[in-house]
Amino acid sequence: MDYQKHLKILKETLEQHKITPENLREKRLSFKEFPKQINNRVVDAFQSFAPFDRAPVWMMRQAGRYLPEYREIKAEMDFFATCQNPFIAAEITLQPTKQFDIDAAIIFSDILVLPKMMGMEITIEEKKGPVIANPLVTPDDIQRLHPPNPEHLEHVYDALFLTRLALQGKCNLIGFCGAPWTVFAYMIEGGSSKLFSKVKKWLYLYTEGSLQVLELLAKESAKYLINQVKQGGAQVVQIFDSWAGQIPAQDYIEFIIPSLRILFEDFKKECPDTPLIMFPKDQNDKKVIVEFLKLIYNDKPLVDGFQLDSNVSDETLVKIIEANRTIQGNLEPGVLYGTPAIIKKRISQMIEKLQTTRRYIVNLAHGLTPDHEVEKVRLFVQESQRQSKLYKAKEILE
Amino acid sequence: MDYQKHLKILKETLEQHKITPENLREKRLSFKEFPKQINNRVVDAFQSFAPFDRAPVWMMRQAGRYLPEYREIKAEMDFFATCQNPFIAAEITLQPTKQFDIDAAIIFSDILVLPKMMGMEITIEEKKGPVIANPLVTPDDIQRLHPPNPEHLEHVYDALFLTRLALQGKCNLIGFCGAPWTVFAYMIEGGSSKLFSKVKKWLYLYTEGSLQVLELLAKESAKYLINQVKQGGAQVVQIFDSWAGQIPAQDYIEFIIPSLRILFEDFKKECPDTPLIMFPKDQNDKKVIVEFLKLIYNDKPLVDGFQLDSNVSDETLVKIIEANRTIQGNLEPGVLYGTPAIIKKRISQMIEKLQTTRRYIVNLAHGLTPDHEVEKVRLFVQESQRQSKLYKAKEILE
Repeated sequence: MDYQKHLKILKETLEQHKITPENLREKRLSFKEFPKQINNRVVDAFQSFAPFDRAPVWMMRQAGRYLPEYREIKAEMDFFATCQNPFIAAEITLQPTKQFDIDAAIIFSDILVLPKMMGMEITIEEKKGPVIANPLVTPDDIQRLHPPNPEHLEHVYDALFLTRLALQGKCNLIGFCGAPWTVFAYMIEGGSSKLFSKVKKWLYLYTEGSLQVLELLAKESAKYLINQVKQGGAQVVQIFDSWAGQIPAQDYIEFIIPSLRILFEDFKKECPDTPLIMFPKDQNDKKVIVEFLKLIYNDKPLVDGFQLDSNVSDETLVKIIEANRTIQGNLEPGVLYGTPAIIKKRISQMIEKLQTTRRYIVNLAHGLTPDHEVEKVRLFVQESQRQSKLYKAKEILE
Repeated sequence: MDYQKHLKILKETLEQHKITPENLREKRLSFKEFPKQINNRVVDAFQSFAPFDRAPVWMMRQAGRYLPEYREIKAEMDFFATCQNPFIAAEITLQPTKQFDIDAAIIFSDILVLPKMMGMEITIEEKKGPVIANPLVTPDDIQRLHPPNPEHLEHVYDALFLTRLALQGKCNLIGFCGAPWTVFAYMIEGGSSKLFSKVKKWLYLYTEGSLQVLELLAKESAKYLINQVKQGGAQVVQIFDSWAGQIPAQDYIEFIIPSLRILFEDFKKECPDTPLIMFPKDQNDKKVIVEFLKLIYNDKPLVDGFQLDSNVSDETLVKIIEANRTIQGNLEPGVLYGTPAIIKKRISQMIEKLQTTRRYIVNLAHGLTPDHEVEKVRLFVQESQRQSKLYKAKEILE
């Protein structure tokens, strides 16, 4: 397949920098400095006193199946092929930045890229999601895991590099990985799950083996994120713990946070100034957030901000605000199926509640899905910016 | 199929009361009084000052596929056939009461029995769960719904009657229904869902139509529960809102609680003294619970207790305890896959935390699943009773 015909947005950058598939790696490794940042709103939202005109806005899964231009590419390539081709991954990452005036691009990739490189045989099946041919069944299977060959992840750093170049400082670039617990759950369940019975059995019966895999994943994830920053040019990183809410708060604190701590520490040792956002989806217990807030590295917090889903309690919010960490969230994406009136009303309620802190990034509570309409997504972006600007203006006047 | 060969536990009761398939309805309708209650612990847990030796214990989905004696029946009958045969439904309900020293039996039925009788074509498929052949697509489809023919639900009241007779007062009997929102979600999604996109689209786009169906379901659910009590002999009722956590707290309060209020009011008008337990699964926001606690009927609360999942916050618990309502929950069922040591430890932490109130019923945070082992379930029941008794004894001594 001639994938280059899909490179519409990226084309100009490739011509300008004379980048070809043959010289990409070499160009990246010898590159000196990215263009000056024109819009730095997302990174600024991690500074206590950075003034901003309005809250920054981006969306989870903003690149994806709801965009016709994405579906065009997907018609010809399988999912991991799109992730593994840095030109295509960059092109897809850029697509929503052309559609909407958003303040960050998040690299188009998958939380299962890393475990795939560690020995898991993963395919993405239409409607079913990820399917893992060789899930871990008993602790004996842990031996099957191996550290990823660093070369096999270079395509992610390539894609980040191309995207950062093409963005020309017009918005920030975010890298990410899956949290150890969520990746571990896929590795045990063999795919998506409703009950998470198998991974819960591991956690409560093969506890030692579970902690061993979680720690391994934490260490490899840290390296992966460090490289996304240092080699790819990611300016913020986010850790997606999509299945965090599947176990009680006390078990999340006892079994999961220790591995996350390893990830955070390893990352911050190398990238002390890169903001790190933690997304413990559906795990909103104040106790869990307080445990995260206790994690300090050389007097600097290991977690700079929290992505929040729409069921976060006021008590949890207060803890984050008191600790001066950044809040990212949290409109229920289902609201975007609704009438313009309800979309505007829910945005207004969200802004009213969360923009009391300067450290706020507008986002959805979870990802966009294929049935979202582009025009409703546009309304979300524009209306969030408009209302946030109004809120700021009022604040200054008062 | 000769289903009567499966009636092992029920057999004695049928002989004693000379009940046959031919005379069952007539026997039920002319019945005067159930045996005296020997163990009333679950009902007592709704009385402020009822002394009890230990907290009562029962489990959600305690009858089901983890029991070999259930699998024997299921090998020969499809799911709705087991629900619709009152003898089989009673037999299955009784199975766990023979295995474990539990304090309540919950009628073996399904939350989709009611919508099935209202015009939805529902089958249960192995591994897939419920599949609805004619989901509601647009508000025009609402006309397809009709009130259930009261006769088509009589088999549930028959099953309750047989169970209550067979229990001989040895434990309490619980009836139930699905909450309007959860039933509505199935009616729109056409089965289980990961994203609940279709039902969210209804809620935010076809809001008026959604509220209309929710209200219809609330009214029919109330009638159904009243009959479970008055005609079947249920002593407590529970409302399962399994998908409560799929929308934000503010939307649950705005759109869902009004229909629940109708259900509660209609029910309490007819059955003011029957305890009603609400289970808003994964919707643990303190604000939501406070809204429920505000619902008062003739100076008596409309909700007598809350089933809680394992992610409930301390703030929410405090509100329930302060309002003197009953707490039921909340051990993560995945813990029962674990080692005896972790099962005992988690039970001890739960009892320590929740038994500070007299109004407490031990239960799991959600239902048992096919992969639970009978012996681990037995350990949960026995250990909860043992620790709860010890806790009570210590309390009295102090």
